[in-house]
Amino acid sequence: MCQLLGMNCNTPTDIVFSFEGFRCRGGLTDEHADGWGIAFFEDNGCRLFLDYLPSISSPVADLVRSYPIKSKNVIAHIRKATQGQINLANTHPFQRELWGRYWIFAHNGNLTDLPALGQSRFQTVGNTDSEHAFCWILNQLSQQFSAMPNRAQLHAAMKQLAQQLALHGTCNFLLSDGDTLFAHCSTALHYIVRQAPFTVAHLSDMDMAVDFSTETTPNDRVAMIATQPLTDNETWTAMQAGELLMFVDGTTV
Amino acid sequence: MCQLLGMNCNTPTDIVFSFEGFRCRGGLTDEHADGWGIAFFEDNGCRLFLDYLPSISSPVADLVRSYPIKSKNVIAHIRKATQGQINLANTHPFQRELWGRYWIFAHNGNLTDLPALGQSRFQTVGNTDSEHAFCWILNQLSQQFSAMPNRAQLHAAMKQLAQQLALHGTCNFLLSDGDTLFAHCSTALHYIVRQAPFTVAHLSDMDMAVDFSTETTPNDRVAMIATQPLTDNETWTAMQAGELLMFVDGTTV
Repeated sequence: MCQLLGMNCNTPTDIVFSFEGFRCRGGLTDEHADGWGIAFFEDNGCRLFLDYLPSISSPVADLVRSYPIKSKNVIAHIRKATQGQINLANTHPFQRELWGRYWIFAHNGNLTDLPALGQSRFQTVGNTDSEHAFCWILNQLSQQFSAMPNRAQLHAAMKQLAQQLALHGTCNFLLSDGDTLFAHCSTALHYIVRQAPFTVAHLSDMDMAVDFSTETTPNDRVAMIATQPLTDNETWTAMQAGELLMFVDGTTV
Repeated sequence: MCQLLGMNCNTPTDIVFSFEGFRCRGGLTDEHADGWGIAFFEDNGCRLFLDYLPSISSPVADLVRSYPIKSKNVIAHIRKATQGQINLANTHPFQRELWGRYWIFAHNGNLTDLPALGQSRFQTVGNTDSEHAFCWILNQLSQQFSAMPNRAQLHAAMKQLAQQLALHGTCNFLLSDGDTLFAHCSTALHYIVRQAPFTVAHLSDMDMAVDFSTETTPNDRVAMIATQPLTDNETWTAMQAGELLMFVDGTTV
């Protein structure tokens, strides 16, 4: 199994604090050392950093720490391989383009007997169940909608697709197009919405704290989603099995 | 206009030396300071680093220098914006998936009156002529071939497509799927094939040299492609206007 981290905000925000704790789980406080990746949306553009080294010792992770990229939608993943070798093609998050937007997907779980992709539009490059599931989702969406649907239509479609995927196994995933961020829980996914009045947060994985009141404006709102809570002095909400949440502008819709 | 850098090898090779000279052109020895990017294929996987900062001062470029990623196919680009704003979505190289492979494209030039993409499969995320041209190429290829063609078929198809594109303006480009690397010249593109006996190369853009004979094996072969020669003591071949070359395993085919 793997670990997921997502962020959805109403204003571009850096993820340095949360990533600092999260990356510890890739080889230090936890065993997910089979590569990692992080995607930052910046308006319609997207930067995807991938490495097959453990996140705790990756030079690319050092860069992410020292270069505070501000983004409204971030998805990160640290991998403990269940299906597929340890290589770059199997490293999450995965990226594709649909309807003139980039889509980013990361998955924690194990899926079996997924429907074959056949000759459909989106094909896997690597050989993980996760990338297969992502391609399947995009193939379904592209068949249902010839152009970008509105958020409500997309939410309804994603609920159905997540339900179908979950029939094939454990399916915690994060998906974003830079506008909305979808989080689906099978077994473990937690979230928190931070907004004014902001307080001090302390990481679970290392002794590090940040006073968000000094780094934010009163209008900021930031939703963090993670497999396990990243802080030990805040109240995170556990998602329910089978639940799909759509985050927009830092809160659930 | 922009500057292009490509590498195609028969064995995974790092591009640190060439990139060190190339990045100088993004704000130091030349004026191409509107962002930059570099893509490394590693087997079927691909890492794409993008930044809208000038390459000479970009923290991401510092990472590329200090983390010698070994790759058989690399494409890099530093941008001087002609069409489209300076932002991440307009930063080359661009990436898409076709036939279960990643494709990477970077362009130097200016194209006008390109055929509309309509409802076709590959759509632009940003608003450059370059990404438009890339999507047009992939749409054409996906219509001509339902699965990956062989190299000869791909080469023939790319020749036709490059000719058609060149009718719309200046069209120097690099394109790779991690196996072959295509280079098309309208106005400026140079290449060199380095193989045994390897010698000392000295950069044009800074006083730095490397003795490749100490860093290679006798079987290594590396083709470098660049808008302008990167070294001042080697003989680079100028490509002809309208020429399309296909590089495989470090040499032209």
